[in-house]
Amino acid sequence: MLSNEETVDIVIVGAGVIGVATAYYLQKNNPSKKILLVDRYLAAGQANTAMSAAAVRNMFASSTNQLLTDTSIKYFEHVQNEIGYDLMFEKTGYLWLLSEEQFSHESVKLWIKRMKESNISCKVYDKKQLKELIPNLNVDFTGDDEAELMNLQEVSYGLFGADCGVLDPTRLVEYYLEGFVKISKVKPRYGVDVQTLIVEANPPLELPGEPFVWQKKHVVGVRTNKGDIRAETVVLATGAWANELLDPIGIDSLTKAKKRQIFVLHAADKAELLEVLNTKGFSEMDSIPFTILPSAGVYFRPQHQEKGFWIGCGDKFGREYKYIQTDEDLVPESAYYEDSIYPVLSKYFPAFTDARPVNSWAGGYSYAPDRIPFVYKKSGVLVVGGASGSGIMKADALARIADALYRGESEAELFGGKTMPSTALGLKNRKVEVESVII
Amino acid sequence: MLSNEETVDIVIVGAGVIGVATAYYLQKNNPSKKILLVDRYLAAGQANTAMSAAAVRNMFASSTNQLLTDTSIKYFEHVQNEIGYDLMFEKTGYLWLLSEEQFSHESVKLWIKRMKESNISCKVYDKKQLKELIPNLNVDFTGDDEAELMNLQEVSYGLFGADCGVLDPTRLVEYYLEGFVKISKVKPRYGVDVQTLIVEANPPLELPGEPFVWQKKHVVGVRTNKGDIRAETVVLATGAWANELLDPIGIDSLTKAKKRQIFVLHAADKAELLEVLNTKGFSEMDSIPFTILPSAGVYFRPQHQEKGFWIGCGDKFGREYKYIQTDEDLVPESAYYEDSIYPVLSKYFPAFTDARPVNSWAGGYSYAPDRIPFVYKKSGVLVVGGASGSGIMKADALARIADALYRGESEAELFGGKTMPSTALGLKNRKVEVESVII
Ligand SMILES: Cc1cc2nc3c(=O)[nH]c(=O)nc-3n(C[C@H](O)[C@H](O)[C@H](O)COP(=O)(O)OP(=O)(O)OC[C@H]3O[C@@H](n4cnc5c(N)ncnc54)[C@H](O)[C@@H]3O)c2cc1C
Ligand SMILES: Cc1cc2nc3c(=O)[nH]c(=O)nc-3n(C[C@H](O)[C@H](O)[C@H](O)COP(=O)(O)OP(=O)(O)OC[C@H]3O[C@@H](n4cnc5c(N)ncnc54)[C@H](O)[C@@H]3O)c2cc1C
Repeated sequence: MLSNEETVDIVIVGAGVIGVATAYYLQKNNPSKKILLVDRYLAAGQANTAMSAAAVRNMFASSTNQLLTDTSIKYFEHVQNEIGYDLMFEKTGYLWLLSEEQFSHESVKLWIKRMKESNISCKVYDKKQLKELIPNLNVDFTGDDEAELMNLQEVSYGLFGADCGVLDPTRLVEYYLEGFVKISKVKPRYGVDVQTLIVEANPPLELPGEPFVWQKKHVVGVRTNKGDIRAETVVLATGAWANELLDPIGIDSLTKAKKRQIFVLHAADKAELLEVLNTKGFSEMDSIPFTILPSAGVYFRPQHQEKGFWIGCGDKFGREYKYIQTDEDLVPESAYYEDSIYPVLSKYFPAFTDARPVNSWAGGYSYAPDRIPFVYKKSGVLVVGGASGSGIMKADALARIADALYRGESEAELFGGKTMPSTALGLKNRKVEVESVII
Repeated sequence: MLSNEETVDIVIVGAGVIGVATAYYLQKNNPSKKILLVDRYLAAGQANTAMSAAAVRNMFASSTNQLLTDTSIKYFEHVQNEIGYDLMFEKTGYLWLLSEEQFSHESVKLWIKRMKESNISCKVYDKKQLKELIPNLNVDFTGDDEAELMNLQEVSYGLFGADCGVLDPTRLVEYYLEGFVKISKVKPRYGVDVQTLIVEANPPLELPGEPFVWQKKHVVGVRTNKGDIRAETVVLATGAWANELLDPIGIDSLTKAKKRQIFVLHAADKAELLEVLNTKGFSEMDSIPFTILPSAGVYFRPQHQEKGFWIGCGDKFGREYKYIQTDEDLVPESAYYEDSIYPVLSKYFPAFTDARPVNSWAGGYSYAPDRIPFVYKKSGVLVVGGASGSGIMKADALARIADALYRGESEAELFGGKTMPSTALGLKNRKVEVESVII
């Protein structure tokens, strides 16, 4: 039971993958601190972390995202292979199918150039090679009026990243959480809904109506449905719900949420689909890579445990931004699969013809304007978020940066010894490259 | 009466100062176009334009804001002096009172340097000179425990801008509106509440459920409480209400609203206050300038018509950001004057001791992250906003830029022949300097 007011050193709000990873590094590097992790759900990792496609890639156009993801992915490999904690990490690779026009576009050239500069594994396949590897792939829309009407671009190239793959986000959450719980002084608490951040005058003058504009003020804790928790530092890892806590105290998170859906298709009873799923030649594991189609933002993730695919779609203009994620954003729309995704999918991969979802769900992306995450400290609150749809693959780096910032280190040491200035992902004096390769 | 659907070339949503100025330049430079201006209020300029302090300054730190304001102010002078349209523009000047610490701060040095480079009139007064000019000004807090408790910084310098002043925003709205109405083909319409922007597939395929993700789409008009209005271009000049129309179609305005209040004090019956109001030596018009105190964000504007002052306060951390401005933001808080503003004001200017507001109101600032406005065109909608609390003083330049962007001109010609790239204030590929001098 919580008493009506309680004091810890750090309270972390949000036990998604970013919250648990941050809890782990904070406790590891600040062993004397009393760190309390809370979430409004009844367990860790139940919100967007659980909804994600949990694909991981280092194929970004900005050196910022390249560094965040590449070091995180290498850490995940280390966890699985050296520590021996199975994250179900499978190196299926990522495959971007591109049209002639896309491939020769300035932004794609820059993307490839920047990957080369960063030594990110990236191989180009031409149309003929793709067709040999994936016989079912339709690379010829000649005479297909429907494809033309649908603005579908013909596949001419494939951009393949061998160091990318998929994992199980639940396992990843468990890994960090177990690590944290082992060394922490207080147990994480669930069903704790943080309603507001408590702002107080510093120093308080005990006058009614404080704080006044002429007083210095800072965040001193959180008000929850289970009482107040006071802390020297409040860490916000609330993902798509950052605004509901930051706006009321006058911090603009610069992020907004957008709904994202996933539809599950089974391949077990369809030979042609199974063949696509088990495509040989890309990686050691005989799997079609995580694949992005040239048009309409449609993509799929191989799912070998359930012998099938997870289908997603990165719809842009026309899909609403939300101020914060609402319950409505958790409801998948069957018409969206039927009318928007399916026609595209079955044009490029005829094997999907007549495939219907056996399951579906939806969650939210928390978008940053430059599609680069935020990590900053302001007036007693340390915010980690804005992962823009790629928070699983950046979680390790973001958590290390948050910890470095907490400790007042100017550089954060990421896995493998690379570093990033701990203020690079700040709200102000941000030192990042804008990201252009967003799914 | 509106029919149920109507077609114009351009519909402008929002008849605040920015909307009417944009209407004026668009119609002037595109005489054949049918341009309809609508607002949900029953007349033009009734929202935040009417709530503003309507002070104008070219004393910004970013060359972007310097250019926007300096050319706009020069145009206002031209309107008043050459065209002979009285805007009640009075060159009272702006006076920043600064402490030693503030004056020697990097950011202030950069601000002064940048003003010099741009030939912006700016004079430095020292403490002694200030005391001579404004005998009531308290420049010595020695031994004042209260002042120390309140974190008040002692005045050491004054930064004075002679080309700044105040005007009547209603007159400014009328000026542009009259100009627009004289040449426009359709009368502005009031009481028209735009509920959504209409997004359609391009080309439409007449299928139920359109637009689908694989279709190109654009904004083709607005849905209002009085029926649909279709237009080739929709101009959004909705200030602090931009999100409620842009978010639903997936455009992140990057702006958020914050409440701002004004309290009116009369000086007529108080000799000491009258003396402050009629301070000689700063300008030809024997007026205290628009004055910003060193602490807590408190400022005042002389108001000679009603022989008094308008008092405001730029509270930052702790004052909530709103997703959009709500009715609550229109309610001034008397305790805010009493507890937050008054104690500060009366410390620096003892003449205000016991002064109580005779009137007050509140409105909203529409903040951009870099405190620089936005002008951009995307998918059929042209957005002009994010003026960050200085939309009156930038209105002329913003409207000219919006018009240039509409006409596809790469450069916007501002008043006096200076130019700005018409895409400089865009959402993407923004070419601006971050603004640091925000009140
Ligand atoms: C459909 C979909 C597909 C995706 N695919 C991928 C992918 O392939 N790869 C990838 O890297 N990323 C992907 N993402 C994005 C990824 O899921 C997120 O970036 C990541 O989960 C963010 O982690 P988080 O910890 O910030 O968020 P969350 O997991 O959402 O955690 C936030 C936590 O904060 C809690 N919380 C919020 N507010 C409060 C409050 N007031 N009080 C108490 N608790 C609160 C919530 O309950 C939640 O548990 C996808 C997302 C979606 C929706
Ligand atoms: C207290 C205060 C002091 C200020 N002081 C200054 C100052 O000294 N100097 C300065 O330059 N600026 C100042 N400002 C800022 C200035 O008022 C604004 O920047 C400026 O008015 C913005 O003009 P606008 O036309 O964008 O906004 P508005 O005047 O708010 O106009 C927006 C219009 O859009 C209409 N609208 C919105 N949504 C819809 C819809 N869905 N359907 C139909 N109509 C809609 C509204 O009714 C409104 O008329 C101040 C603001 C406040 C609140």
